[in-house]
Amino acid sequence: MPQAFYSPRHLRFLLYEVFNVERLTQFPFFQDHHRDTFDLVLDTAGAFAETRLRPLLTEMDRREPQLVDGQIRIHPGMHPIVRQFGADGWINAQFSYDEGGQQLPTTVMNAAAFIFQSANYSASVFPFLTTGAANLLRSFGSKTLVETFTPKMYAGLWQGTMALTEPDAGSSLSDISTTADPTDQEGVYKIRGQKIYISAGDHDGVENVVHLMLAKIKGGPAGAKGISLFVVPKKRLRNSFSPQHSEFSINLENNDVVTTGIYHKMGYKGAPIAHLTMGSHDDCQGYLVGEPHRGLSYMFQMMNEARVGVGLNATAIATAAYYASLAYAKERPQGRPIAEKDPVRPQVPIIRHADVRRMLLFQKAVVEGSLSLLTHCALLSDLAHVAQGDEREKAGMLLDLLTPVAKSYPSEMGCLSTSAAVQILGGAGYTTDFPVEQFYREARIHPIHEGTTGIHGLDLLGRKVSQHGGKGMRLFMAELQGVIAEARQVEALVAFADKLEKYLFDLQQITTHLLGLAGESTERFLADATLYLEAFGILSIAWQWLKMAVVAQRVLQAGATGDEADFYGGKVATMRYFFEYELVKIDSLSLRLLSADAVTLEMRNEFF
Amino acid sequence: MPQAFYSPRHLRFLLYEVFNVERLTQFPFFQDHHRDTFDLVLDTAGAFAETRLRPLLTEMDRREPQLVDGQIRIHPGMHPIVRQFGADGWINAQFSYDEGGQQLPTTVMNAAAFIFQSANYSASVFPFLTTGAANLLRSFGSKTLVETFTPKMYAGLWQGTMALTEPDAGSSLSDISTTADPTDQEGVYKIRGQKIYISAGDHDGVENVVHLMLAKIKGGPAGAKGISLFVVPKKRLRNSFSPQHSEFSINLENNDVVTTGIYHKMGYKGAPIAHLTMGSHDDCQGYLVGEPHRGLSYMFQMMNEARVGVGLNATAIATAAYYASLAYAKERPQGRPIAEKDPVRPQVPIIRHADVRRMLLFQKAVVEGSLSLLTHCALLSDLAHVAQGDEREKAGMLLDLLTPVAKSYPSEMGCLSTSAAVQILGGAGYTTDFPVEQFYREARIHPIHEGTTGIHGLDLLGRKVSQHGGKGMRLFMAELQGVIAEARQVEALVAFADKLEKYLFDLQQITTHLLGLAGESTERFLADATLYLEAFGILSIAWQWLKMAVVAQRVLQAGATGDEADFYGGKVATMRYFFEYELVKIDSLSLRLLSADAVTLEMRNEFF
Repeated sequence: MPQAFYSPRHLRFLLYEVFNVERLTQFPFFQDHHRDTFDLVLDTAGAFAETRLRPLLTEMDRREPQLVDGQIRIHPGMHPIVRQFGADGWINAQFSYDEGGQQLPTTVMNAAAFIFQSANYSASVFPFLTTGAANLLRSFGSKTLVETFTPKMYAGLWQGTMALTEPDAGSSLSDISTTADPTDQEGVYKIRGQKIYISAGDHDGVENVVHLMLAKIKGGPAGAKGISLFVVPKKRLRNSFSPQHSEFSINLENNDVVTTGIYHKMGYKGAPIAHLTMGSHDDCQGYLVGEPHRGLSYMFQMMNEARVGVGLNATAIATAAYYASLAYAKERPQGRPIAEKDPVRPQVPIIRHADVRRMLLFQKAVVEGSLSLLTHCALLSDLAHVAQGDEREKAGMLLDLLTPVAKSYPSEMGCLSTSAAVQILGGAGYTTDFPVEQFYREARIHPIHEGTTGIHGLDLLGRKVSQHGGKGMRLFMAELQGVIAEARQVEALVAFADKLEKYLFDLQQITTHLLGLAGESTERFLADATLYLEAFGILSIAWQWLKMAVVAQRVLQAGATGDEADFYGGKVATMRYFFEYELVKIDSLSLRLLSADAVTLEMRNEFF
Repeated sequence: MPQAFYSPRHLRFLLYEVFNVERLTQFPFFQDHHRDTFDLVLDTAGAFAETRLRPLLTEMDRREPQLVDGQIRIHPGMHPIVRQFGADGWINAQFSYDEGGQQLPTTVMNAAAFIFQSANYSASVFPFLTTGAANLLRSFGSKTLVETFTPKMYAGLWQGTMALTEPDAGSSLSDISTTADPTDQEGVYKIRGQKIYISAGDHDGVENVVHLMLAKIKGGPAGAKGISLFVVPKKRLRNSFSPQHSEFSINLENNDVVTTGIYHKMGYKGAPIAHLTMGSHDDCQGYLVGEPHRGLSYMFQMMNEARVGVGLNATAIATAAYYASLAYAKERPQGRPIAEKDPVRPQVPIIRHADVRRMLLFQKAVVEGSLSLLTHCALLSDLAHVAQGDEREKAGMLLDLLTPVAKSYPSEMGCLSTSAAVQILGGAGYTTDFPVEQFYREARIHPIHEGTTGIHGLDLLGRKVSQHGGKGMRLFMAELQGVIAEARQVEALVAFADKLEKYLFDLQQITTHLLGLAGESTERFLADATLYLEAFGILSIAWQWLKMAVVAQRVLQAGATGDEADFYGGKVATMRYFFEYELVKIDSLSLRLLSADAVTLEMRNEFF
C-alpha cells in the first residue's frame, strides 16, 4: 500500500462538518454544485496526486532543473503533468463558465490544491502560479490582453509567473528599478531591468512564459506610487501584438527576456527559480495592465491569495511529513515501555513512547489546526466573492486580518513540525532513504517567500489590527466569542472555552498596550511585531481547534462507534494537546510583549 | 577579508575572564602550561581552520563521499588534512607526555576543536572520533592493545570510530545482536554482525580503521549487562596479533569487515557514514577491551565526552551561521527605518530593523551562552581529572548532571539559531549561493546523534536529578545561587539576579512536583521529560549569561573604552535579551509541567 500523505477524511470533516461548504451552493454563482461534485473534485485530485505527482517527489529533488543554452530544463516527467493540469481544468476551475471555468468554490479548489501540494510541492506550484497570473490579468487587464494570453495559460501550454523581486528590491518592493518606456503604440512599453527569484520563470515544459511584472514608467512618482503592472511574455506574437495570430506557436518570436541565471536551493528543487534580464537588446515589450502607477495595489490582490496559498503549501508539506513519521512510529520497534524494562521481552513500536506520541500530537495539532484556519480563509474568500452586503464586507475584512496569520503560522510551525517528523525517524530521518529530510528542506522556504514573517508581523500589528477603525479585529473577537459560547454548551468543553476566553483577553490586553505605544514611538510599537504575530497565530489555531472539538464532541455524544469514534476522539484529544502544550506559550509571549525593556532597539551594531 | 566564522575575542573572554582557565596550571598535570601556550594553541588552531578547513566547507558538501568497490572515497582534499591533524598533535593533545601527548587541558583543547568545527564541521569529526576511540582504548585496554593501535591513531594514519548502532538497536543499545565467539587465543573473539551509521566508519584517507565496537559474548546475560567492548580493526596485523609487526602497512591484512553501504544525508555530507558487516566469511577478529560484559559502562565514558562534543559541534555550526548572517545584515541595504519611510532616501542596511536585530540577538544569545556552558563543562572535566578530594568529586557530579543539558540545549537551539540566520538572508539564504543553508542542514543532526533529545530528557529527569541522593542537583543550585549573590553586588544587575532566583525556584517546584509523581507512575513522571530538559536548559544558559554579565559589567564600570566597551556592552545587552525573550519561556513550560492532564499518555494509536 502506498504511504498516505494526507487524510481525505480530515479534509471532508473540515469542508462538510466544520465549515459546511455545501451552504455555498445556495449562492447563484455556485448553484450547479453540490456535495457530489465536490467529492468528485477531491477524488479526482487524490487520484492524480497519487498516481502522477507523488511518484516524482524524490526524483524531482534529486535531478534539479538546469540552465542549458539559455533555457531552463525541468525534470522531463513534469512536461506532461504541466499540460495535464491545464487539460483537466485545474488552472481555471474557479473562474466563470464564460471563461471556460467551472465556477468551483475556492474552498474546494484549495482542498484539491492541498492534495497536490501534499503529494509533491514542487510539482504543484506550476499550475498555481499560472492561475495567479491569469487571475490578475482577467481582473485588471484589457479584453485584448485577456483573450490573447489566458486561453493558452488555462490550457497549461503557457506558464504564468509573478515577477516582483529584483536584486535591490526584495522585501522593499518600492525600490524596484525595472523601467517601462512608452512606445508610440498605446499600452505597449519597452521594458528594461532584471528580476530575480522568479518561480517557474522559465522552463521547457511550456512553449511560452507570461510574466505579470512590476516596473516603473519613466517619469512616474518615486516609491510604491510609481509602480505599474505589465504583461511581459517570454515570446510575443510575431509582427504585431494581435490576438488572431495566437493559434500557432510558430507565430511566436523572442521578446528579449533572457534567462540569465538559475538558483540552486536547499529544497523545493523541482521548481525552477530564474534570474531574468529584460531588454538587453532594447527589444522587450511589456503590455500595461490596468492603469499606470496602480501596479502594486493590483499585485496585492494576487499576493494576498498567494499568501494564503503559501500557508497551504507549508501545511501540505508538514502533513506529508506527519504521515510519514506516523507510519514509521507504528512500525519501528525500539525500546520497551518505560515502566517495564525487561530486555528479554520484545521491543515495542516507538509510538508506544510518550515523547514520540507528544511529537506526533504536535504535528497533528499544527497541520490539522492550520488546515482548519486555511479552510476558514478560503471560505471567507468565497463569501467575499459571492455573498451580499454586510456578509460580504465582513468576510473581506476578516480575511484581510487573518491573511498574515494564515501565511505565517503554518509557515513557521511547518518548519518545526517537519523537524519533529525527522526527530521521530531519528538517524534514518536524517538520511535520504526517507522523504522527511526533503520535507524539512522544503518547509524552510515558506517563512521567507511572499513576505517574510517579519513583514507579516508588521502588516498585522501595524496595519490590519487597526484597519477600518479596528473592525476586522472586532470581527475576529466576535468569532472567538461565538465558538466559546458554543463550547460552553458542551459540558466536556467548558474548561477549554474558559481557557480560550482567558487567552483572548490576554491578546486584547497586549493589543491595547502595543497600540498605546504607537503614539509614543513607531519603533517601540512595532519592535516585537513578530512575537505579536506568533501569539495571534497560536490563539487563532486554538480557536480552530475548539471549533473542531465542538463538532467532534457532539458526534461522540450522539454515539459514534468504531473508526468514527476514533476519528472524533482524536480531534478532542488533539485539541487538549494544543491547549496544554501550545496555547500556554502565549503566557511567555505576553511577558515579553508587555515588558518595558526595549533591548532590540537599544542594541548597537558595534555590540554584535 | 575572509568572513569570520567565530570570535577569538569571545573565546578568550570565556577562557580567561569568565572561567579563569589559567588556574588549571596550578595542578601538577598542567604545570608546564601558561596563558602563552594556550594562546598559541588557539592561534594555531585558528590559522589551520582558516587556511585549510574553511576553504573546503562548500566543496565537501557538494562532492559527497561515495562507496566505490567496497571502499568509501572521501573528498581528496581531506586526505592531507586527516594526516595533518595527527602530525600537528591534535589527536592526542590532552593525553600524557608518555603517550606522546601535550597534557593540554580539555578546556583549551575544546576551544581549539570549536574553532575547527566552526570552520568545517564535517572535516572536524575525523580527528575527534579517533581521539574518542583512542581514549577508550587507553583507559580500559591492555598494554598490548594500546601499543598496537594508538600510535598510528595519534599519527592520523589510522581512523578511530565508535561502533554501537545496529539496524534493530539505535536508542535501545541493549538490543544489539552482534556476537563475539571466543577463540582459543585469549582475548581474541570472532565477531559477526552489522553496524549502521558509523561515522568515518571507512574511508580512503587512512590505511586502517579501528572500530571500538560493542558486541555480545555468546552465553552472556541478556540486555545491557551482556555487552562487551572490542577493538575490531578493518585490517589486522598479518599472521598474528602481535605489536612488533605494526611498523609496515604491508603487514596488514583484511579482517573481514566489509563496508556494505554508505548513507547519504541531508547535511554533514563531508563525513562518510558507513554500514559495516563483520564476519560474513567467518574471519573477523575482535580483541576484548577490559573485562567481559562491561562494555556499555566503558562506552559511556566516551559517550559522555562525545555528548558534550555534540553540544560543541552544534554551537560551532550555529556560530558560523551567526557570523555569516551578521555580515550580511551589516551590508545588505533593504527598506527604510520604520518611523521615516521616505522612498527618496537611500535604503538602510537591514541590521537597522528591530526584527533583524532581534534575530541576531537570538543567535548571539544562543551561541555564546551555549559556548559558555560547554566551556564550564570542559573545565569540570579537567577538574574531575586533576583536582583532589571534594573538588574532584563535585566537579564529576556536576558534569554528570549537566551533560544531557550541554548536549541538548545547543543541539535543539542550534537548529533554531541557524534557521534565524537563514531568515536574515531571506531568499538568498535559501539558495546555495550562501553557506547558511548548509549550516541549517548540518545543524539538524545534533538533536539525533549521541542520544536523541528525548533520551537525554529521560537521562536528566529519570536519573541525573536524583542521582547520589540529589547531590548533583544541589551543586547546580548552589552554583546558581553563587552567581545570583555575585550579581547582587553589581547594582545594574540586581533585577536580573532576582529574576534568575525566581526561575530557579520555579525549576525546583517543577522538579519536586515531577519527582512526586515518580511514586505513582513512572510513565506520568517521565512523560514530559523533554520539556523538563528544555526548561533546565534555558535556566542553565540564563545562569551562564548572568555570570558573563557580572564580568562584563565590572569591566565597564572600571572604565572600558572603544572596542572593548562595545564588546562588554554587547555581553550585558545580550544577557538582557536572553532574560527578556528566552528565560520567560519557562513560565509556559511550568504551566504544562505542573498540569494534571496526561494527554500524551491517554492518546491512543487509533486516534492519530
